[in-house]
Amino acid sequence: MIIVTKIGVTEDEVDQIRERVESAGLRTHISRGETHTIIGCIGEEDRLRRLPLLSLPGVESVHPVMKPFKLASREFSAGPSRVPMGDVEVGGDELVVIAGPCSVEGDDMLRATAHAVAAVGARGLRGGAFKPRTSPYAFNGMGTRGLEILARARAESGLPIITEVMDTRHVEEVAGHADVLQVGARNMQNFALLTEVGRVHRPVLLKRGMSSTIRDLLLAAEYVMKQGNMKVILCERGIRTFETATRNTFDLAAIPVLKRETHLPVIADPSHAGGRRDLVAPLAFAAIAAGADGLMVEVHPTPDEALSDGDQSLDFQTFGDFMNRLRPFAAAAERTLAEGAPRPVRAAV
Amino acid sequence: MIIVTKIGVTEDEVDQIRERVESAGLRTHISRGETHTIIGCIGEEDRLRRLPLLSLPGVESVHPVMKPFKLASREFSAGPSRVPMGDVEVGGDELVVIAGPCSVEGDDMLRATAHAVAAVGARGLRGGAFKPRTSPYAFNGMGTRGLEILARARAESGLPIITEVMDTRHVEEVAGHADVLQVGARNMQNFALLTEVGRVHRPVLLKRGMSSTIRDLLLAAEYVMKQGNMKVILCERGIRTFETATRNTFDLAAIPVLKRETHLPVIADPSHAGGRRDLVAPLAFAAIAAGADGLMVEVHPTPDEALSDGDQSLDFQTFGDFMNRLRPFAAAAERTLAEGAPRPVRAAV
Amino acid sequence: MIIVTKIGVTEDEVDQIRERVESAGLRTHISRGETHTIIGCIGEEDRLRRLPLLSLPGVESVHPVMKPFKLASREFSAGPSRVPMGDVEVGGDELVVIAGPCSVEGDDMLRATAHAVAAVGARGLRGGAFKPRTSPYAFNGMGTRGLEILARARAESGLPIITEVMDTRHVEEVAGHADVLQVGARNMQNFALLTEVGRVHRPVLLKRGMSSTIRDLLLAAEYVMKQGNMKVILCERGIRTFETATRNTFDLAAIPVLKRETHLPVIADPSHAGGRRDLVAPLAFAAIAAGADGLMVEVHPTPDEALSDGDQSLDFQTFGDFMNRLRPFAAAAERTLAEGAPRPVRAAV
Amino acid sequence: MIIVTKIGVTEDEVDQIRERVESAGLRTHISRGETHTIIGCIGEEDRLRRLPLLSLPGVESVHPVMKPFKLASREFSAGPSRVPMGDVEVGGDELVVIAGPCSVEGDDMLRATAHAVAAVGARGLRGGAFKPRTSPYAFNGMGTRGLEILARARAESGLPIITEVMDTRHVEEVAGHADVLQVGARNMQNFALLTEVGRVHRPVLLKRGMSSTIRDLLLAAEYVMKQGNMKVILCERGIRTFETATRNTFDLAAIPVLKRETHLPVIADPSHAGGRRDLVAPLAFAAIAAGADGLMVEVHPTPDEALSDGDQSLDFQTFGDFMNRLRPFAAAAERTLAEGAPRPVRAAV
Repeated sequence: MIIVTKIGVTEDEVDQIRERVESAGLRTHISRGETHTIIGCIGEEDRLRRLPLLSLPGVESVHPVMKPFKLASREFSAGPSRVPMGDVEVGGDELVVIAGPCSVEGDDMLRATAHAVAAVGARGLRGGAFKPRTSPYAFNGMGTRGLEILARARAESGLPIITEVMDTRHVEEVAGHADVLQVGARNMQNFALLTEVGRVHRPVLLKRGMSSTIRDLLLAAEYVMKQGNMKVILCERGIRTFETATRNTFDLAAIPVLKRETHLPVIADPSHAGGRRDLVAPLAFAAIAAGADGLMVEVHPTPDEALSDGDQSLDFQTFGDFMNRLRPFAAAAERTLAEGAPRPVRAAV
Repeated sequence: MIIVTKIGVTEDEVDQIRERVESAGLRTHISRGETHTIIGCIGEEDRLRRLPLLSLPGVESVHPVMKPFKLASREFSAGPSRVPMGDVEVGGDELVVIAGPCSVEGDDMLRATAHAVAAVGARGLRGGAFKPRTSPYAFNGMGTRGLEILARARAESGLPIITEVMDTRHVEEVAGHADVLQVGARNMQNFALLTEVGRVHRPVLLKRGMSSTIRDLLLAAEYVMKQGNMKVILCERGIRTFETATRNTFDLAAIPVLKRETHLPVIADPSHAGGRRDLVAPLAFAAIAAGADGLMVEVHPTPDEALSDGDQSLDFQTFGDFMNRLRPFAAAAERTLAEGAPRPVRAAV
Repeated sequence: MIIVTKIGVTEDEVDQIRERVESAGLRTHISRGETHTIIGCIGEEDRLRRLPLLSLPGVESVHPVMKPFKLASREFSAGPSRVPMGDVEVGGDELVVIAGPCSVEGDDMLRATAHAVAAVGARGLRGGAFKPRTSPYAFNGMGTRGLEILARARAESGLPIITEVMDTRHVEEVAGHADVLQVGARNMQNFALLTEVGRVHRPVLLKRGMSSTIRDLLLAAEYVMKQGNMKVILCERGIRTFETATRNTFDLAAIPVLKRETHLPVIADPSHAGGRRDLVAPLAFAAIAAGADGLMVEVHPTPDEALSDGDQSLDFQTFGDFMNRLRPFAAAAERTLAEGAPRPVRAAV
Repeated sequence: MIIVTKIGVTEDEVDQIRERVESAGLRTHISRGETHTIIGCIGEEDRLRRLPLLSLPGVESVHPVMKPFKLASREFSAGPSRVPMGDVEVGGDELVVIAGPCSVEGDDMLRATAHAVAAVGARGLRGGAFKPRTSPYAFNGMGTRGLEILARARAESGLPIITEVMDTRHVEEVAGHADVLQVGARNMQNFALLTEVGRVHRPVLLKRGMSSTIRDLLLAAEYVMKQGNMKVILCERGIRTFETATRNTFDLAAIPVLKRETHLPVIADPSHAGGRRDLVAPLAFAAIAAGADGLMVEVHPTPDEALSDGDQSLDFQTFGDFMNRLRPFAAAAERTLAEGAPRPVRAAV
């Protein structure tokens, strides 16, 4: 931590600041400039974070030096980390595409989707059983029955499943069926939930909150990792800005910034970021060009009949074309993309 | 819902759109302009919300007509609603000031605070037992013991207590001790939690999320109310914008907009909005001038020693001065503010 | 400037950074922590601002110490400065209300407005002759003829006039007619214009840009002041955020923050901030409660007929009521507000 | 325009709204739903835009139907338009890379840069002679002498030059030297300047303002086009959001949205969007993947010595590598990229 004093700070004020810092167990190093005095604080910065230093007389500004996240940082692990998801790994040379409907709406539609997306190279199946909806009057998922449908689709297709958990009371149940637990954008700072998913041994897909900074996202990952679960996949899915032409503003630059700051894998969700079918491909191609480790894309047998997010879902044909157009971008990014043939069905979880 | 077609839409496309709407059980009313055709949809708009109308061929834009919230709207109840909080009501002529520390740090500090704030006119005691913290390494509250300390402070001071609940598993316990359950900004779209606090019979103080629109806030209130709990107090506490000079950007205009849109009472939290002691008074006075029904202010016996939010907490003396300066603004807004004498200790909850 | 190095920086890298700073004519002061080395740079910080320090090997972050604005700062002048506007001063004990139509639409409407607003206590007359409009197809003002109409309204009413200048080629002409030159939000970083209005001897009303930070606003004021024109009035009028319920998001906290950072007077424009008539009063009262030195309010004889901004303009009756309701808030803020009687007509400019 | 009435609107109010619309010369079409009445307005929507319809009694909301821009729209020209820039065209199959220093700092550095960037495939030379700087104390360009240096670099290298104009008084002079006039982000709504560059016969490169919506950008282009100059190139360069990890938030999705809405070519500026050298490549590759027609990249012989924007400038070697890595992404996007050999020197302007 570096403390910069106001112009005209008194010796007494500097002494008080110094004492306050030292009483927290850090050493200080004082450097007097022509107008400002700078107090460097040496030692465990965390002890200073809670102190109201900004309110001490004579303090102009306070500058943290240490990054507030540790386990997620490149200093902790030079990385890149690879997070297993069924038979594949997210974060390696192979790009991983996760596809599936916004919500699980039934057995047939999910099995059909699993089959269709696997056939063109998807390596994970998404589908919501518990759905966060802005309105209490919207379809909020099939719940436990949705989980069972997902498990059957996995058994049949061999695709690992990724599904959201929204309630600390459901973590155990969802972890019993899913390969990857998704924490959604609206729960990214639901710290009770982060702590709970940190206690299970399933990988966690953590979506960036709509108003969360990159630093907030990394601190949310840190919550999970602090409990011992290091298998965290980060997902950029758009933030809230003044622009209304798209559902969210896709923060493309977050991908290379995250890759620089953390060893954790980073994927992108072009469906939620853009909110419209015609934006899925350009945003997805761009994410790969910018260095993303994978994608999560909404696919539905009949998007026009979808119970949620139909406007941003691709049908099977469009998804197949999309995967074909994705390949040269993957190659340009020096990554590989699975061919259509699905891998053999893996053993039960 | 109004559907506007693209320039050059065909008759077939218009027919398809019409059929899609009518198959959802609504009637349509078609109006042909010089360049655009407009399709008015008459009936239950909720049935249309989930349809991917924007993706139908020929559709340019879709305009909802009905407000998505019902129970929270002025159409449902002309209002204003008054929400009981101990012996007082939030939403009536009397402005209600809630004060107390960010976190409950111990018995003595809380009792001293309760006594001090009651003596100058506060009518509620805030204090966090479960604390949401951006970093997993920060102090996250005393938990159950904090609730017990709060209950004792109430018994002694007669002040109703307001405290945050962050986990669905804690709702019952917190409701057993608190007079008002606070749902924090980071959990404003934790729909599992909203549903759960909707099931208890305690008033709920719902803080606006950092990236939530006013409409999102009203839909979050709707979640609570849909479960039968109509006692919701809304709280503006700042949103996230590009401005970094303040912790958040206090959206002052949200207060009169909310008062126009909903019958629910609206209070403001100037401590979190500004993030600095010197901003508490101007933001609080402004909130009252703009029509707020009350305030929530962080007060601590020794802010410089606080375990959280010390930079934005007032000490007792400053809070007393603040309350005195607040009175003429309350009068200008044609509201009253409790005098210093606390009301008689009320019976146990 | 303080430079923080990366974990694992080498001695050579520190030496390079030091040499780079010293070659710019500053001294350095090196402090080695457990993980990071901190390089304090002592001397003229401006010389360092242009250096790409962040790109030097081993540099983690760079923290400016000096404020980038000088003439506008409290260090330069403890203030508060008072800016003359006709016979009154903005920034003194008296609150100054400027009122008038968005655009000058003709002689009669302006004279009627001048008379009406002066009668209830306004001390300045606003009205656009050159209008910035988002669409090239919208009414863009009467130009030179509008300036002449403004000048006649001043001669008759005694009210000083405030009008916008948008083009460097018009500065001299506008300064020949107006008492205060307004630089609008869209031109707040039109540096050629700022420089030009800095060269005339008229006060400048500088409106905050929609995406400008408080620091940007103060640097824009600095542009004007650097040319020798110290008579700058700042105006908060709302910023752009994700919230769509209001035209802009009124950044109320900017008022007390500006009052702390600068000696210049600060007023608010509640008409543009909210964009709706019913929001003018609550936003205006709040601005005064937060410490603003005045207000600029749109008033029109028949708002429903206005050629621009009719939705946010008050009619004479409503403005009169507004001024009456404003008085107790002015008193609560320990400010005075002019009574209805206009002051004697002042001599020609 | 569609007008939606409030619940409980009276017949009289509907009549008044209808009369107001019809008196502006449009026809109305009334559709009565169960709770709301919808008034469709048929005819020239522009005539309604200035009316304060939202303030009429009984009006709940107002929905424009027509796009406010015309000449820039796909309805006006199905496009895509190709804008000539020296010997090349922006908007065709060939991707156009413009490169050069932030500011022209001297003859030698510019000639060296022109030579270096042309050799690896750049097809335009950027360089600022007049520089907009947030601080009045920063280097603001060489002015007229900078223009002359640019002209010499063009004569020698054959590269067309792109340079910013900031003042209506300079448009003629800059147009006398430059092949493309750049209007910068801070002047995107400087309507006097837009009008003036619309009157010359040089292509205009229009950068998106930091808080401008996509619609605002298209309306700014419309200003230029309305004067008769249809040669407008749009440039996405990042917007202002709460995220501070990057200089701006690169709104990648704006590229495909613009390509859908307008026939004008769209390029991206990855240097300003990210603000750091290491972000230039990922953002540039992403822009091409998303459909951009070209790029503008800052290149400097010795970025560490640059007088402005050194942190985000590439040196010659890095730029050469960048161009090589760009080629496979161009191919994946089914575009071509010029090979290193520069085309023959073209005749004088």
